[in-house]
Amino acid sequence: MENVNRSSPENWVSSRSPVTEAGQLVVLVTSGGKRFLFQLQPGQYFHTHLGSLPHNDLIGLPMGTTVHSQIGHAMLLLEPSLADLMTRVRRTTQIIYPKDANYIVHKLNLRSGSHVIEAGTGSGALTLALAWSVAPAGMVYTYEVRAENFNTAAENLRRAGLQPFVKQYQESIRDGFHQRGVDAVFLDVRMPWHYLEHVRTALRPGGFFTSLVPTTNQVTELLIGLEASGFADIEVEELLVRRYKPVPDRLRPDDEMVGHTGFIISARPIVDPSDPKRWLSQERKRYEARKEVEAIIAEEEERRAAERDAGGKKYPRMPLPG
Amino acid sequence: MENVNRSSPENWVSSRSPVTEAGQLVVLVTSGGKRFLFQLQPGQYFHTHLGSLPHNDLIGLPMGTTVHSQIGHAMLLLEPSLADLMTRVRRTTQIIYPKDANYIVHKLNLRSGSHVIEAGTGSGALTLALAWSVAPAGMVYTYEVRAENFNTAAENLRRAGLQPFVKQYQESIRDGFHQRGVDAVFLDVRMPWHYLEHVRTALRPGGFFTSLVPTTNQVTELLIGLEASGFADIEVEELLVRRYKPVPDRLRPDDEMVGHTGFIISARPIVDPSDPKRWLSQERKRYEARKEVEAIIAEEEERRAAERDAGGKKYPRMPLPG
Amino acid sequence: MENVNRSSPENWVSSRSPVTEAGQLVVLVTSGGKRFLFQLQPGQYFHTHLGSLPHNDLIGLPMGTTVHSQIGHAMLLLEPSLADLMTRVRRTTQIIYPKDANYIVHKLNLRSGSHVIEAGTGSGALTLALAWSVAPAGMVYTYEVRAENFNTAAENLRRAGLQPFVKQYQESIRDGFHQRGVDAVFLDVRMPWHYLEHVRTALRPGGFFTSLVPTTNQVTELLIGLEASGFADIEVEELLVRRYKPVPDRLRPDDEMVGHTGFIISARPIVDPSDPKRWLSQERKRYEARKEVEAIIAEEEERRAAERDAGGKKYPRMPLPG
Amino acid sequence: MENVNRSSPENWVSSRSPVTEAGQLVVLVTSGGKRFLFQLQPGQYFHTHLGSLPHNDLIGLPMGTTVHSQIGHAMLLLEPSLADLMTRVRRTTQIIYPKDANYIVHKLNLRSGSHVIEAGTGSGALTLALAWSVAPAGMVYTYEVRAENFNTAAENLRRAGLQPFVKQYQESIRDGFHQRGVDAVFLDVRMPWHYLEHVRTALRPGGFFTSLVPTTNQVTELLIGLEASGFADIEVEELLVRRYKPVPDRLRPDDEMVGHTGFIISARPIVDPSDPKRWLSQERKRYEARKEVEAIIAEEEERRAAERDAGGKKYPRMPLPG
Repeated sequence: MENVNRSSPENWVSSRSPVTEAGQLVVLVTSGGKRFLFQLQPGQYFHTHLGSLPHNDLIGLPMGTTVHSQIGHAMLLLEPSLADLMTRVRRTTQIIYPKDANYIVHKLNLRSGSHVIEAGTGSGALTLALAWSVAPAGMVYTYEVRAENFNTAAENLRRAGLQPFVKQYQESIRDGFHQRGVDAVFLDVRMPWHYLEHVRTALRPGGFFTSLVPTTNQVTELLIGLEASGFADIEVEELLVRRYKPVPDRLRPDDEMVGHTGFIISARPIVDPSDPKRWLSQERKRYEARKEVEAIIAEEEERRAAERDAGGKKYPRMPLPG
Repeated sequence: MENVNRSSPENWVSSRSPVTEAGQLVVLVTSGGKRFLFQLQPGQYFHTHLGSLPHNDLIGLPMGTTVHSQIGHAMLLLEPSLADLMTRVRRTTQIIYPKDANYIVHKLNLRSGSHVIEAGTGSGALTLALAWSVAPAGMVYTYEVRAENFNTAAENLRRAGLQPFVKQYQESIRDGFHQRGVDAVFLDVRMPWHYLEHVRTALRPGGFFTSLVPTTNQVTELLIGLEASGFADIEVEELLVRRYKPVPDRLRPDDEMVGHTGFIISARPIVDPSDPKRWLSQERKRYEARKEVEAIIAEEEERRAAERDAGGKKYPRMPLPG
Repeated sequence: MENVNRSSPENWVSSRSPVTEAGQLVVLVTSGGKRFLFQLQPGQYFHTHLGSLPHNDLIGLPMGTTVHSQIGHAMLLLEPSLADLMTRVRRTTQIIYPKDANYIVHKLNLRSGSHVIEAGTGSGALTLALAWSVAPAGMVYTYEVRAENFNTAAENLRRAGLQPFVKQYQESIRDGFHQRGVDAVFLDVRMPWHYLEHVRTALRPGGFFTSLVPTTNQVTELLIGLEASGFADIEVEELLVRRYKPVPDRLRPDDEMVGHTGFIISARPIVDPSDPKRWLSQERKRYEARKEVEAIIAEEEERRAAERDAGGKKYPRMPLPG
Repeated sequence: MENVNRSSPENWVSSRSPVTEAGQLVVLVTSGGKRFLFQLQPGQYFHTHLGSLPHNDLIGLPMGTTVHSQIGHAMLLLEPSLADLMTRVRRTTQIIYPKDANYIVHKLNLRSGSHVIEAGTGSGALTLALAWSVAPAGMVYTYEVRAENFNTAAENLRRAGLQPFVKQYQESIRDGFHQRGVDAVFLDVRMPWHYLEHVRTALRPGGFFTSLVPTTNQVTELLIGLEASGFADIEVEELLVRRYKPVPDRLRPDDEMVGHTGFIISARPIVDPSDPKRWLSQERKRYEARKEVEAIIAEEEERRAAERDAGGKKYPRMPLPG
């Protein structure tokens, strides 16, 4: 063991200031569990139904301090998590929730320095998670056709301080992407199967593709598209988070849970799509083989039935292959 | 829209070489879906039951290329994902699986530049995910008491090229951690509630704590410990991944799924733990209140019963509060 | 193949009248999916926000008929299912939901002719399901201490016409049950482990015991009780129903789902409880064995540490068993 | 309270003999948790890898007795549950598992006296559950085209003693069913949507229809069929059973769970199918409405684009409805 003084301040490793500073985003949590996210600005006031608080009183405090509104309500001052940032964005669309955003980042294999394309931007909640993962050395290229969403996302990114790591395009992806050689592409559009050639063109060899769709019908369409467009290593997954009531002597799952958000489909581009069937999943191949056998059996059954109906020769009672 | 030439090579954004290089980790996927992870080394051979392949034939190919063993079996050359790295480590312990590792990274709020403590290291699968998230500017401090695990983890980190972002300690955490002011602490030990004071001491204000335990009994113990040690914003969650067979015209979930790995508990340290009850969850407080009422009712019922048994005065048939 | 006239009325097998009759329970479903359960009574009116309807207009119609309120709203006339009966009871307590009720009936192994004890009755929703399963030859014996619940359950049973198959007791089960040799016992009480001796006394050899508790702490307590009281074949299960939106071209699970109701524990009494450990689950036995080994290791580690601290003899670097 | 002698034998309510009898089905559970189902026959022997046991030693014992093989292995003698019967059938097909069988019985609204059609019979596992529910006053009519399955099911029903409540047909359902006015119909065939008219013809008004299919594509097809064939009150559900290891001080879910068996679709026939759209789910109707709006928007967008391309008049920047 090295001989370190465990209480010495020179072991301090965080680059974060130990106290809040003007301009910083903070969360106030009420004793009822409500969370408020805002930026500390000298001279401003935080107002809520539980009373108000001057920002000046919050600047310079350590995170984790209990503070009181002017009418005496206690609130907890916390550093916001990425989940706080994502779920407290201004919204002009439905947003992708942290559980999925986080798994999508994982399936896209992002890390600091990655370059990733996203379409569409929506309100920018996932864009925050993408930028968070690739900063400071990487970049997010995000496409959105509607001006309203484009502006909402820009504002949400600016507030979170993640705008330097995002390049926003207000345009359709119908004609493709501006980038070549990106590490990953994520599609959150209604018909992702329409854009797979564009995805192939933008992705570098070895890159990662992921999409999120809400319905099983879309999963089916996207799988057909991926098989036809030279993708392999295809996976379809769904994520369920089960939350528990944190009561030690009455531990139990929450009564209600989010039942569904979307299916996450991921795949890798292959160089030579001439024989894409080779890389279908085992299950897929087994099914193809079974379909062929069944077609043969059905044909044979039909033939026998026709001959029987025609009063023709009796087949011996040999079982058909099952 | 800006006037860019979409096929121009100056749009190439990845820092990755378009072809494989000696020393790089690659994955070979068989047509049966088996995955092999190894490092490309000039002069070496890859051997499997489907035949062998000289590494020299693989060096210089684009990722996504179909290659063939000397006896003609096709295999797909892929860049490994973080999940490939994690699930193909050498193991001397059970490992934390990607679905959980990934969610733990999220609950610890890690990003490039974060400083995070982990105990114990185990085989280092989660350590890979932590290092991946904090690289290149951050650092993982990981503690492990058993030499065998310590060495396995070192080897796994070296192979993945993530050792520069990890400082390993082969020692117990009984006496605490060497660091102060870390951004996050993760405990994967049997009795995490024994080390909560050490966690508080090591965490900077605003830091993030997370633990993973397999049983409900441990969740209960940890919740008791967290409430007693000045933590708030406590959450207990469990993650389920449901995989689907990627067959477009026969889409269905897998027959088998992972039913349980562990419960993920997360919390934030508070500055003044003098009134920790204030920050209990609403559910917790409601339960405390109910317990008090029930104790009063039980006492009253007992008293009435005693008087009845003693032949004493009859209580009117007034309902007790329910 | 038998030579039957497939359209002949003599093939009619149901004992049910093809049209509604006075006194019958029916359900009206609005086009918005709301369901109303009531009894047809000549001269009465059905009133709702969508208009009113004379019962007389409904009597004599086939089930499945579309009817209209006096202001023109269409509603569908349906025969109520058991689930309709259970979820539309008058309530003075939380009720056990159909998914669980149904599984409990299954774990109790009920069929027509079974005799089953239930405690407590609550609002009688589960009692309906039990009576439904054992009728017409069996009997439900149900215990409830609170008058309010007792009366509510009586009314709910009467309305559903299932009262002949239920014997209600308004009394505590502290002193046991009135029956001997019942086929099954179900406990829905806060501390079922207090009554296991009573359960053993009431159950016939080969009988079935089941209980439903909401928290993991209660499961632990009940398991301890069952092991100590001569029960084997112990199972702990939880049931999740995932509902889908029935939209063919946008098939997807519901956004919200019931996340938790309770844990269903079932067990069988054994004749000779002298060696109950013999019938513990494999997992349980493996854990007991591991605990013993770990205790030995911990002791040995302590001894070595003590000797080391005392400057005593150095142990060779032999690994402890892992 | 009635004045009963709680230990008096006249309170004995079960019609079951308190001890085993020749001809009865029993289960032997090994200390390793393996279960063996067989019929007690004087003079026969039970053989297993843990030794053998003469049936004569088992006849006359109370259920729940611990017995020993001739080489000393302990086994527990239990009365088989319906689940034991179902999961220990001889199989020539995949079987429907107890969790689903049980829920199907519930969705079919079966009780003693019900008449229910099943197709196909398969190995008869579900047939056992159906017969169990409708006995002794009701009847199951089950159709199966393959001789092998027909015979397997017959044997499984005979062994369980449930054959008196089942009428088996070895024939296709292409031309319909022999019964009219049945209370319920269950279809376990690959393309249930082909037989919905036959189902309508066989069901009495107010009857219950249910089907089980494994893939989402089949659910979509069946929903289209049900909407077109005059069914309402349509539900799509999936059942997940989560089992826990019954270890009190290490309570946790099983590591593995059954991830998928099938989707359960249920519906009710309506009398006048002239306006089936009326009874679509709210979600369905909302979606239909949205599709119409979207079609209008898409058309408008196309028209505007065409005019723009033609250099025609500039549309004001009015947002399209979102």
